[in-house]
Amino acid sequence: MINSDFKKKMTDSWFSYLQAQICKEFESFEKKKKFIRRDWSKKNKDEGGGTSFILSGGNLFEKVGVNKSTVSGKFAKEYKNKILGAGKNGKYWASGVSVVAHMKNPKIPAIHFNTRFIVTKKEWFGGGMDVTPSHKDTKEKKLVHNMLRKVCVQNKKNYKKYKKWCDTYFYLPHRKEVRGIGGIFFDYETDNWIKNFKFVRELGLTFINISREIIRRKKKLKWKKKDKEKQLIKRGRYVEFNLLYDRGTKFGLNSGGNIDSILMSLPPEAKWK
Amino acid sequence: MINSDFKKKMTDSWFSYLQAQICKEFESFEKKKKFIRRDWSKKNKDEGGGTSFILSGGNLFEKVGVNKSTVSGKFAKEYKNKILGAGKNGKYWASGVSVVAHMKNPKIPAIHFNTRFIVTKKEWFGGGMDVTPSHKDTKEKKLVHNMLRKVCVQNKKNYKKYKKWCDTYFYLPHRKEVRGIGGIFFDYETDNWIKNFKFVRELGLTFINISREIIRRKKKLKWKKKDKEKQLIKRGRYVEFNLLYDRGTKFGLNSGGNIDSILMSLPPEAKWK
Repeated sequence: MINSDFKKKMTDSWFSYLQAQICKEFESFEKKKKFIRRDWSKKNKDEGGGTSFILSGGNLFEKVGVNKSTVSGKFAKEYKNKILGAGKNGKYWASGVSVVAHMKNPKIPAIHFNTRFIVTKKEWFGGGMDVTPSHKDTKEKKLVHNMLRKVCVQNKKNYKKYKKWCDTYFYLPHRKEVRGIGGIFFDYETDNWIKNFKFVRELGLTFINISREIIRRKKKLKWKKKDKEKQLIKRGRYVEFNLLYDRGTKFGLNSGGNIDSILMSLPPEAKWK
Repeated sequence: MINSDFKKKMTDSWFSYLQAQICKEFESFEKKKKFIRRDWSKKNKDEGGGTSFILSGGNLFEKVGVNKSTVSGKFAKEYKNKILGAGKNGKYWASGVSVVAHMKNPKIPAIHFNTRFIVTKKEWFGGGMDVTPSHKDTKEKKLVHNMLRKVCVQNKKNYKKYKKWCDTYFYLPHRKEVRGIGGIFFDYETDNWIKNFKFVRELGLTFINISREIIRRKKKLKWKKKDKEKQLIKRGRYVEFNLLYDRGTKFGLNSGGNIDSILMSLPPEAKWK
């Protein structure tokens, strides 16, 4: 049996590698702008920290954040019962990558991706990706879902279940609206670590492929002011979701995370009517 | 002893009157734009509803909402214990006015005001007002706090306590930042109903006077693009507070309120770095 320390080392390394790959890919779309790196650590440095890469004001990316963090510690009383296996002593270890890209061109959707490995009394993988357009594009939706289905099927994962989970999770009950066109979402993958880790790695690479496809198809599309307005209103919904419901935001705030990294998911600009 | 029905009628009428006065005052600053009225009611119409007045795109107000609602019902299990006196059967009745003004001119602060009367097994007044500038102005801060101190002292209310409560409440722990220059905040005023109602009425009128003063002093000030940027970033904090912490937002979402009215507090535009 593989021990926990080995799993931690492996996942931590993978997430660092994936972060670098994503940044490299995304930077290749930009002419002048580069990612800016920022390292942070928790107050108690023994409890880890992270590295965030942010690129703002690009010709493609209005703002994109690619975060990786590896943290540990003890959750506060009020929060620990909400985390699988942390209810008893509140202790946790977590490592993951998360990406949110807000595009300048409103015809290109916002893209979100995250994978993580969490260890409490239990240990499991979780993650997902979803796509938030402000303009309808049936072909794009098909493209995204086909690629996600493929990586799930190849890894014997239940695509339908993950798709539904995504639709249920990225939903704004107060507006009775879905966030976007969905994607996949999964959590508590506690069984076969080796197979799950393989799936998580392949999903990370699939995310890069999907992003490339989405961007390639649309980066030259013209847009008007009213398209941008529509995007800014849609981004308002994105803000609402991330601050009212997102579990990642809550996890970050409850694990002593770096505030700029946690809130890097917020768009550079948003509007409300 | 005054019975509860009488109190409900009186407070409900006062809040309607105050709403009309605030709209009249605010509209007097605008040349062309008028408030747009929207009535809404809860799914179960016997449980009340409200009226929101919104003015957008004015020469002074980029967006201002003046809401009044009177609602009743039964809180869900998870929420009722958070409301004084609602823990047993979850029943409540509530009426109140709330105002949030986001200004076009970034030199003029955002202004927030709210008063409410809530009836569960207990009955009490609550409310407050606070001011959120994106530019420092010591004179303005003094002016606001002097007027608030005065209305508290005249009503034998503990200004210092209310001021501190406001500072504690309008605080963003994740950023370790205060929301603005404060104001007053109070809740659970369960004692002498007649005196408390008088205080709430006078505070409403004081809010109008304070708003008039703030606007009068600054409406002709020139501003630059960088001032606006500063304001938009400050508004991002406003969004964070209202979605992550604001009890009014949570109360609205938990009492079947109208989503547009609840979220009218969100600025027309905000930015994140």
